[in-house]
Amino acid sequence: MSNSTPRTFNIVCIPGDGIGVDITDAATQVLTALASAFGTFNLKFETLDWSSKNYKQRGYYAPEGGVEGLKKYDAIYFGAVGWPDVPDHISLWQMILPIRTTLNQYANVRPTRIIPGTVSPLSACASDPSLLDWVIVRENSEGEYSGHGGTTPSTAHAAHTVATEVSIFTRVGIERIMRFAFETALHRPRKLLTMVTKSNAQRHGMVLWDAIFYEVAREYDGRVKYDKMLVDAMTVRMVNRPESLDTIVATNLHADILSDLAAALSGSIGIAPSSNLDPTRTFPSMFEPIHGSAPDIAGQGIANPIGAFWSAAEMVRWLAGADGASNDEGLVEGKGVGNMVEAADCLMQAIANVTEKGVKTKDLGGKSNTKEVTDAVCEEISK
Amino acid sequence: MSNSTPRTFNIVCIPGDGIGVDITDAATQVLTALASAFGTFNLKFETLDWSSKNYKQRGYYAPEGGVEGLKKYDAIYFGAVGWPDVPDHISLWQMILPIRTTLNQYANVRPTRIIPGTVSPLSACASDPSLLDWVIVRENSEGEYSGHGGTTPSTAHAAHTVATEVSIFTRVGIERIMRFAFETALHRPRKLLTMVTKSNAQRHGMVLWDAIFYEVAREYDGRVKYDKMLVDAMTVRMVNRPESLDTIVATNLHADILSDLAAALSGSIGIAPSSNLDPTRTFPSMFEPIHGSAPDIAGQGIANPIGAFWSAAEMVRWLAGADGASNDEGLVEGKGVGNMVEAADCLMQAIANVTEKGVKTKDLGGKSNTKEVTDAVCEEISK
Ligand SMILES: CC(C)[C@H](C(=O)O)[C@@H](O)C(=O)O
Ligand SMILES: CC(C)[C@H](C(=O)O)[C@@H](O)C(=O)O
Repeated sequence: MSNSTPRTFNIVCIPGDGIGVDITDAATQVLTALASAFGTFNLKFETLDWSSKNYKQRGYYAPEGGVEGLKKYDAIYFGAVGWPDVPDHISLWQMILPIRTTLNQYANVRPTRIIPGTVSPLSACASDPSLLDWVIVRENSEGEYSGHGGTTPSTAHAAHTVATEVSIFTRVGIERIMRFAFETALHRPRKLLTMVTKSNAQRHGMVLWDAIFYEVAREYDGRVKYDKMLVDAMTVRMVNRPESLDTIVATNLHADILSDLAAALSGSIGIAPSSNLDPTRTFPSMFEPIHGSAPDIAGQGIANPIGAFWSAAEMVRWLAGADGASNDEGLVEGKGVGNMVEAADCLMQAIANVTEKGVKTKDLGGKSNTKEVTDAVCEEISK
Repeated sequence: MSNSTPRTFNIVCIPGDGIGVDITDAATQVLTALASAFGTFNLKFETLDWSSKNYKQRGYYAPEGGVEGLKKYDAIYFGAVGWPDVPDHISLWQMILPIRTTLNQYANVRPTRIIPGTVSPLSACASDPSLLDWVIVRENSEGEYSGHGGTTPSTAHAAHTVATEVSIFTRVGIERIMRFAFETALHRPRKLLTMVTKSNAQRHGMVLWDAIFYEVAREYDGRVKYDKMLVDAMTVRMVNRPESLDTIVATNLHADILSDLAAALSGSIGIAPSSNLDPTRTFPSMFEPIHGSAPDIAGQGIANPIGAFWSAAEMVRWLAGADGASNDEGLVEGKGVGNMVEAADCLMQAIANVTEKGVKTKDLGGKSNTKEVTDAVCEEISK
């Protein structure tokens, strides 16, 4: 590919509900500014109206074949889903969870650090923000989110009603997420991986999880340091010794909980990104801020767009194939153009410059609205 | 019962492993001092050697019929279990988990607050410790700790190995813990109950959990305020708005995680108590600090005994039947002698006086060892 023919990436946006709409809008503006500032790649956006509002009217989020249809794009940008008038388990199981599993997005990656202009609620990290710098690798395809289980009798009202939740762990599923986590740790400055489990109380799937971790660990001996934590004790370590952690790997549910805690400890849930990756690059990966649809502030133009911008930066970095994925073991490098890595770095720097200056939303202690933060980031990019 | 015939309570101690031994020893000393200072009740101690060391020699923790044998005591005082040379899932499933379920200890109660002389790692709570004052009610008999599930083929080494963890939720199990939690909230100054769930991603057992919560809630309308949180978002609320929480009810696994986080946020895992209650008082309840056996500091005489003392205070309070349990709905009042409530308060005050003075172990920033803290608390009691 010559320098004069910028590569085009087709991005499909699913803004979803509530502030998902505001922040997806902000993210596409910032991404457009980024592409035109660099001129070496193009981003073409399409938008799908898979929202709870439409679900109420039509009876579905994604139409028949809709999730399959996502396979033709280069990446998916997701806002947020969930609205008070649709039970959460319906909105999630009809949209976000099928996307993650159908598109083989088995690795959910959640970096957390304290960006300039934000303050950790932990005294120690408030004085030294460098203490907290983590990447959480979440198993994103099975475990506690398998969806198996049921209720008998099907009404909750019988005196003897019993319901089950069945977590399913497969060797394939565990092995690939462990390998991905070790590869991630290998490309981090500190090369330390902490594996989280609850194998003391959960003696089947979690024991398999542990066994396969140690198996894969042998391949990385001498290259990656590793240790093991019980999920309950892990919260204590995150609070008390953040500097002792680097890369973390955990199950679908455990990492869901730990990554929200991580975001809170870093100063705001509004800044944290989440990448749902198909590390084999067979199907498009999906990028979304970790926050939800926030019905209470939706449509007011005051949502914090930083989590959305950081997610956008992760998308650009993934498209550039510069995420530390290797060709070994099915982790395939991206085929983006070279300086998209610079573009991702540029976006992260723009975010930092803007928050450092104090242009930030209320949740970060600032006074700006979504548009003001977005404009400021676009302006930094074009500098 | 006349004032001149002090009632005797038979307490069975299971020190277990590691620092469990040191702190059980400290707790019995303090309890003995308390009983003799009050003179209105007697505590008679017996000790069972159900340790990992004995397991290695004999092949069992509790002997045949051992757990059943606990039924003849008035209460169980538990240290800690777990030692590096026995896999955790064995030590737990052979001892602590069977005790909890066999003795119908379906409610695990974990108060958390910041006691004098301890400092929260959260800046906000470091300046105003009163912001954090919670009681976590943990479902202690089923859910994610049901033990169901398996591995097929039974070796982890097959390429297609699959393992499951099956969480079981019953109407009876959910209803009784919800009722217990509402009763607990009703007796707290703020009368607020927050229910934790993950019913957006776990759509069977967790949906039943939610439904029964709202059913029971109707009985308390106007008497207890209540709200619902997803477990991931709950960690954020605990960090950011501790003052917005009071009583919390969650499943076995969720509450396990949240209560360790709570202890960390309050300043030390070494001070937090845990009561495993049979609210029907058919069988003895069990009291234990939430910390583990801490192999790294075992036998050095430096373990923090405060969690053990607070657990001892909770035991005395439970024996006095003054825990807010009511006769409605199967929650039966205790038959202890009246001023055991005063005794429990006296022990809590003694702890506070000692930690406030700075007589505390290293983990709390002090320089004292277990014996010095224990002696200081005994001295306070006899004042
Ligand atoms: C929206 C929901 C399914 C979700 C999850 O639990 O996975 C969210 O909390 C997240 O962390 O992405
Ligand atoms: C020892 C272990 C079974 C335990 C649990 O997970 O219940 C501990 O973490 C606790 O919280 O009591």
